[in-house]
Amino acid sequence: MAIKIYGSSDSGNCLKVRWVADRLRLAYDWIETSAFTGVTRSPEFLKLNPAGQVPLVVLDDGRLLAQSNAIITHFAENTDLVPRDAYDRAKMFEWLFWEQYSHEPYVAVRIARVHFQKKREDEIDPNLKTRGDAALARLEQQLAQTPYLVGNALTLADIALVAYTRRAHLGGFNLSSYPSLQAWVKRVEADLGLPKGNETP
Amino acid sequence: MAIKIYGSSDSGNCLKVRWVADRLRLAYDWIETSAFTGVTRSPEFLKLNPAGQVPLVVLDDGRLLAQSNAIITHFAENTDLVPRDAYDRAKMFEWLFWEQYSHEPYVAVRIARVHFQKKREDEIDPNLKTRGDAALARLEQQLAQTPYLVGNALTLADIALVAYTRRAHLGGFNLSSYPSLQAWVKRVEADLGLPKGNETP
Repeated sequence: MAIKIYGSSDSGNCLKVRWVADRLRLAYDWIETSAFTGVTRSPEFLKLNPAGQVPLVVLDDGRLLAQSNAIITHFAENTDLVPRDAYDRAKMFEWLFWEQYSHEPYVAVRIARVHFQKKREDEIDPNLKTRGDAALARLEQQLAQTPYLVGNALTLADIALVAYTRRAHLGGFNLSSYPSLQAWVKRVEADLGLPKGNETP
Repeated sequence: MAIKIYGSSDSGNCLKVRWVADRLRLAYDWIETSAFTGVTRSPEFLKLNPAGQVPLVVLDDGRLLAQSNAIITHFAENTDLVPRDAYDRAKMFEWLFWEQYSHEPYVAVRIARVHFQKKREDEIDPNLKTRGDAALARLEQQLAQTPYLVGNALTLADIALVAYTRRAHLGGFNLSSYPSLQAWVKRVEADLGLPKGNETP
């Protein structure tokens, strides 16, 4: 039985999972599941994931797994996407947890407000911009020093953080003062064989 | 050189790190560092952690590591706090990422607003209560089925999630309708040798 991935193609959290599965050549069925239509709050879906969120994965033995960064960590165990060195692996997890706490809630949420929900500027919490800019500046600071977030090789940290960063312009974030970040987005997109995020308006 | 832990004794995120270090009998120096006084935003501290957050750990070789759940994962690799089974380990990470995204930003932040910052109810975002209650109900749902979050044994998931849950009453959360959660808090507190959180006002 192939893996099933319930996910939305509009969601960076879901795309992370698809990219890692593709890179590792895992066989899977993608079940397009929007986070915006309420289907993830339906009784049927809540039986699969009581947290009411995509992505959700049904593994080949039928067991369920949620949380994008937990899913990609599971898929990528013992592959070159996870550093073998214990300290580098810990730094990868540092970025993964930071992504969910300090980046996604601002950058991704602002992309949703501006681009998908078409909110007016005065309807959007200004905190999303301030905190999102701080997160992008933090990435720039690291990427001015190293080509990838954890040194010289692509890890899950890059895949997780590129997911929304490459589309940050859709949330009204201006990346022009972050040259290292822009170069890193292109580098990771090339590694993953993705079309360039900055070209999609 | 012993590990140094920069942390605040008021912070569940910091206490997680101390509890795991104690349980694993790691030698460390605790450097009390409040998140409320601005010291974590000082130039000296930002050199150590550009994210401006505690906990922060200086490992015995002088290298730095941030993000509570990344730190405890690093400390506990290959110990009985991390399941050996790959699926159970993935579920542990699911809870750890869920904690930082769906529990801490509501339960911990409301504890800070009510207990530490002494805000009036009308000054507090009502979302913190709604989402915090949802997170506590989600824990209850799992703990009605299993004694620990990942089956029958204590893992990092329990340690991470008990940190703020045991003090949720200080944020005005009512735990009386969550009997399985209350029993789990006592179980984990006993495992860790902690005083009972519900007794400290």
